Amino acid sequence: MTGKNVLIVFAHQDPNKSFNAALKDVAVKTLEDNGCKVQVSDLYSQNWDPRATKNDFTGPRQNEESFSYIVEQSNAAKQGKLTEVILAEQKKLKEADLVIFQFPVYWFSLPAILKGWFDKVLAGGITHSYPANVFENGLMKGKKAVLSFTTGGSQDMYTSKGTHGDIGMILYPIQWGTLRFVGFDVLKPNIAFSAAYRSKEDRKKILDDWKLRLQKIFQENAIQLREK
Amino acid sequence: MTGKNVLIVFAHQDPNKSFNAALKDVAVKTLEDNGCKVQVSDLYSQNWDPRATKNDFTGPRQNEESFSYIVEQSNAAKQGKLTEVILAEQKKLKEADLVIFQFPVYWFSLPAILKGWFDKVLAGGITHSYPANVFENGLMKGKKAVLSFTTGGSQDMYTSKGTHGDIGMILYPIQWGTLRFVGFDVLKPNIAFSAAYRSKEDRKKILDDWKLRLQKIFQENAIQLREK
Ligand SMILES: Cc1cc2nc3c(=O)[nH]c(=O)nc-3n(C[C@H](O)[C@H](O)[C@H](O)COP(=O)(O)OP(=O)(O)OC[C@H]3O[C@@H](n4cnc5c(N)ncnc54)[C@H](O)[C@@H]3O)c2cc1C
Ligand SMILES: Cc1cc2nc3c(=O)[nH]c(=O)nc-3n(C[C@H](O)[C@H](O)[C@H](O)COP(=O)(O)OP(=O)(O)OC[C@H]3O[C@@H](n4cnc5c(N)ncnc54)[C@H](O)[C@@H]3O)c2cc1C
Ligand SMILES: [Zn+2]
Ligand SMILES: [Zn+2]
Repeated sequence: MTGKNVLIVFAHQDPNKSFNAALKDVAVKTLEDNGCKVQVSDLYSQNWDPRATKNDFTGPRQNEESFSYIVEQSNAAKQGKLTEVILAEQKKLKEADLVIFQFPVYWFSLPAILKGWFDKVLAGGITHSYPANVFENGLMKGKKAVLSFTTGGSQDMYTSKGTHGDIGMILYPIQWGTLRFVGFDVLKPNIAFSAAYRSKEDRKKILDDWKLRLQKIFQENAIQLREK
Repeated sequence: MTGKNVLIVFAHQDPNKSFNAALKDVAVKTLEDNGCKVQVSDLYSQNWDPRATKNDFTGPRQNEESFSYIVEQSNAAKQGKLTEVILAEQKKLKEADLVIFQFPVYWFSLPAILKGWFDKVLAGGITHSYPANVFENGLMKGKKAVLSFTTGGSQDMYTSKGTHGDIGMILYPIQWGTLRFVGFDVLKPNIAFSAAYRSKEDRKKILDDWKLRLQKIFQENAIQLREK
């Protein structure tokens, strides 16, 4: 894996002492020790604005009468007229061989700040182009992506018989509807269930397991996301 | 339905000329014509900040060493030490008999701005309290909620055999993992598939159907969200 580029998109308010921070730090260290070049987009520290608005575009509007973000976004992307902060994220994404998303689950989904990274960075013409360049032909083809997240709920709750339902229900919109849509090979998620309610030893084991897995992560293949 | 309170949480950048705006306007007019009191939280116009940060709390921190949003949020909620803007949304929610969420689908899910409304307004101790007050005992018990949204993809794509998969996969985290979790009776979603690619007549029919449905919406019962 020497020479591989990795982007970690990190979405926790505490970049030092949270368990999400610990998972991020293990990833940075392990991957760098194995010769990768690692970049971290620390969204809260960057004060990333998740709102999709007209302020995201620096050129003239395609349509001055009414506002459609999808229309303005792909128009601006074509002309390189997205803001510097968005262009910077797209550049990191373009260079990355592997992207790790590290976050705590909020309401069976992404924290809003991270959702807004997807809304604004994954732009038509840059990461995909409908209908020719989506799914297996998405422009992120050949790159790997992995969701690494923590939950409050326990593994038992996140089963089809549990109160929360199968954890796959959380993953589908992100893994299939987003990451696979733009062409990523989606790897098995790394899930730390009930991070805050586990024993010290359990948490240590979660970090150790993640470290071991990361050492060989470039050998992993995409998981199957839907029944054929 | 005279005297009922309705809250519409609206998440489109264009409050006047978008199709989402048209759906919102039909709802406001129809419900007011039928004697309801309607409030609209227009998130982009309010410049709603979707980021969950320490700026959301006005009192002293529960834990100064490390930052856990869930810990600080429920602590602040207990003491009424959330910011004015968050308290204002919680007040509207408390008064509402029916809440309508009006939005365009972004990445098989909510636009980030609306996701951040859920992350910050649905606070432990206010809308739910784990484990005693969740699901059928959630504090939003007796209130109705409905997702009203537009998509780019067609209805065909959003079937189990279609490229996008069953539309239920988009709905589950929101309807079950969020709305039902805090106790709402979730009504059938109102879905305008491929709003931008339909004929003028189709779009008129979507608005007319929504209007008709709204006239009797308080007679509707909750839909079943999971197999028993
Ligand atoms: C708005 C909101 C919505 C939510 N919705 C959901 C939901 O839908 N489903 C759900 O399951 N959960 C939900 N949660 C809970 C949330 O997912 C958890 O609070 C979060 O995952 C915990 O992760 P953390 O990194 O913040 O944990 P922390 O509280 O930071 O960490 C947990 C423990 O790990 C310890 N730790 C830190 N570093 C290390 C280290 N290096 N080694 C060992 N231990 C360490 C910490 O000291 C702490 O004791 C929600 C929370 C919020 C705020
Ligand atoms: C970041 C991002 C991610 C996305 N992800 C997805 C996804 O995962 N899945 C998906 O399916 N789609 C996705 N989309 C597409 C998105 O859902 C659509 O662009 C959106 O739903 C269209 O709704 P709108 O209100 O913006 O339409 P508009 O473009 O505002 O309206 C559509 C048409 O309705 C007309 N109209 C307005 N008012 C009226 C009226 N009163 N009567 C009749 N006609 C009227 C308008 O003039 C226009 O012609 C995404 C878009 C973005 C920006
Ligand atoms: Zn629009
Ligand atoms: Zn934390």
